[in-house]
Amino acid sequence: MTDLPQRIEITEEGPREGFQIEPGPIPTADKIALIEALSDTGLRRIQAASFVSPKIVPGWADAEAVVGGFSPRAGVDYTALWFNAAGLRRALAFKDRLSIFGSVTVTASEAFTRRNLNRTQAEQLVAQRANIAAHREHGVAMERVSVQAAFGCNFGGEVSAAQALAVLGDAMALADDEGCAIRRVTLADSMGWATPLRVERLVGAVRARFPELAITLHLHDTRGLGIACAAAGLRLGVARYDAAVAGLGGCPFAGQPGAPGNIATEELVFLCEEMGVATGVDLPALLEAARLAERIVGHPCPSNLLRSGVRRVA
Amino acid sequence: MTDLPQRIEITEEGPREGFQIEPGPIPTADKIALIEALSDTGLRRIQAASFVSPKIVPGWADAEAVVGGFSPRAGVDYTALWFNAAGLRRALAFKDRLSIFGSVTVTASEAFTRRNLNRTQAEQLVAQRANIAAHREHGVAMERVSVQAAFGCNFGGEVSAAQALAVLGDAMALADDEGCAIRRVTLADSMGWATPLRVERLVGAVRARFPELAITLHLHDTRGLGIACAAAGLRLGVARYDAAVAGLGGCPFAGQPGAPGNIATEELVFLCEEMGVATGVDLPALLEAARLAERIVGHPCPSNLLRSGVRRVA
Repeated sequence: MTDLPQRIEITEEGPREGFQIEPGPIPTADKIALIEALSDTGLRRIQAASFVSPKIVPGWADAEAVVGGFSPRAGVDYTALWFNAAGLRRALAFKDRLSIFGSVTVTASEAFTRRNLNRTQAEQLVAQRANIAAHREHGVAMERVSVQAAFGCNFGGEVSAAQALAVLGDAMALADDEGCAIRRVTLADSMGWATPLRVERLVGAVRARFPELAITLHLHDTRGLGIACAAAGLRLGVARYDAAVAGLGGCPFAGQPGAPGNIATEELVFLCEEMGVATGVDLPALLEAARLAERIVGHPCPSNLLRSGVRRVA
Repeated sequence: MTDLPQRIEITEEGPREGFQIEPGPIPTADKIALIEALSDTGLRRIQAASFVSPKIVPGWADAEAVVGGFSPRAGVDYTALWFNAAGLRRALAFKDRLSIFGSVTVTASEAFTRRNLNRTQAEQLVAQRANIAAHREHGVAMERVSVQAAFGCNFGGEVSAAQALAVLGDAMALADDEGCAIRRVTLADSMGWATPLRVERLVGAVRARFPELAITLHLHDTRGLGIACAAAGLRLGVARYDAAVAGLGGCPFAGQPGAPGNIATEELVFLCEEMGVATGVDLPALLEAARLAERIVGHPCPSNLLRSGVRRVA
């Protein structure tokens, strides 16, 4: 148990990733209400919006209204997602309230890249040069490499640790060539192929080759192993996790409508409390926010802890 | 990873524990249909019915009709549950098709014992003498001690490993005094208080004191940690698990209506496949049975794998 981190940093993805997969439009006011509720739970990082093309993700056509609409709390970093220069420019309009940093995004599955970006992986890497240049132009540092489909892909099948590491290596070489000092890597299980064993293999491989990188695990509970994967990460000392309140979310491009989404933030917090790992989050407040999220989407969410509530003695 | 078992033995509890918590009566024919479907999945142990008083568990008033109604498959052990001489006699009427063995049942929580049995733990232990005597009278060996609420209780709070071990010790001493050769212990998380750390502590404590006992983990996914607890058990080499297809079940006496139930058999099988642990179960066939279970209860069941299906490449 000695490798357990003393505390972890959670990035709450519910407002961004959680809402984008819902079939109907989520009212802007509801998105803002959830961000406000989450802001009072002790969470220190909340992803508030996605600055992507409304043609691709119609649910985020109101990104500006959402990011301009909530009241930022001191001590909370609000982040957003974008993939190109246009998205960056939209985000920069809110640099007074958003934590702005650059990400190099690559995908470990050639099939996923082709299908969703209509590019080869080589072309995707070239596009990242343009992405880096756009950030440089605006004086925004590239801090992170994000590896999508790092454990497997519904279109390409299994992704070995070697394959994910090779894609990460290409991105790191490109970043180095561009003079970027990457400090963090997100290993994203976009389509729910991670298992405890795969987490161990990939985290081990990444650490061996890039010991300087802080690792974030972005896990989905698609097939019920999400929290077991997080437990495996904790045992390895991984100290950064993405999660979504109520277990909202899922990848809209995964070809799996109805599949359960991200690991539920409240289940991750509960696991950490039980393992003696600090999160800074007030679990009852987070469960209140989860109930709000469920009311907003209007259907039961996957989180089991939300069904049962925290343990209490009758 | 060296302590992983090569294979595990799963006792499928869906037909027994799964159906007893449903609010409406489940038709006898549906119970039989699920047992038949599960019998063709490669599962080797299926708990088919509960011979308890219909006054306490009305859903099992048809135990005789169910156990007499399915077609036993060669190579499958069908089991049933009972807690006293009356239940044993009902089960013995089906000894040609049920695997009959005796269990000493104790509860690690005084509060749960008082509330649900209206007994002290001392009185419950005395009742077990009568239970053992009834089995002796019918020539049925006592093979197992079952510790309910082994990790915590909604009425009594946390149960420490020392507390659960003391209750197990009392039961073992009683069994020894009665001349019973107990070979197995079930550690049952009746109300969903187990966590990976608690599993490690209790399994370690039980092994240190009773190295001769084979341990079964009976886990619930009440708060989302069930599969992570099973993964912790696998790493310790625990080779026997109870589970319920589709994640049916839950404890009707837990004071938590609507809480998620047992760990889903299909998620346990999937976890094992990923860890290289054999189960003998055909996962697609099991998912078919899970879909049948969901149709029978008429509402979505908690299993995430059932929502998503096995991984496949589009």
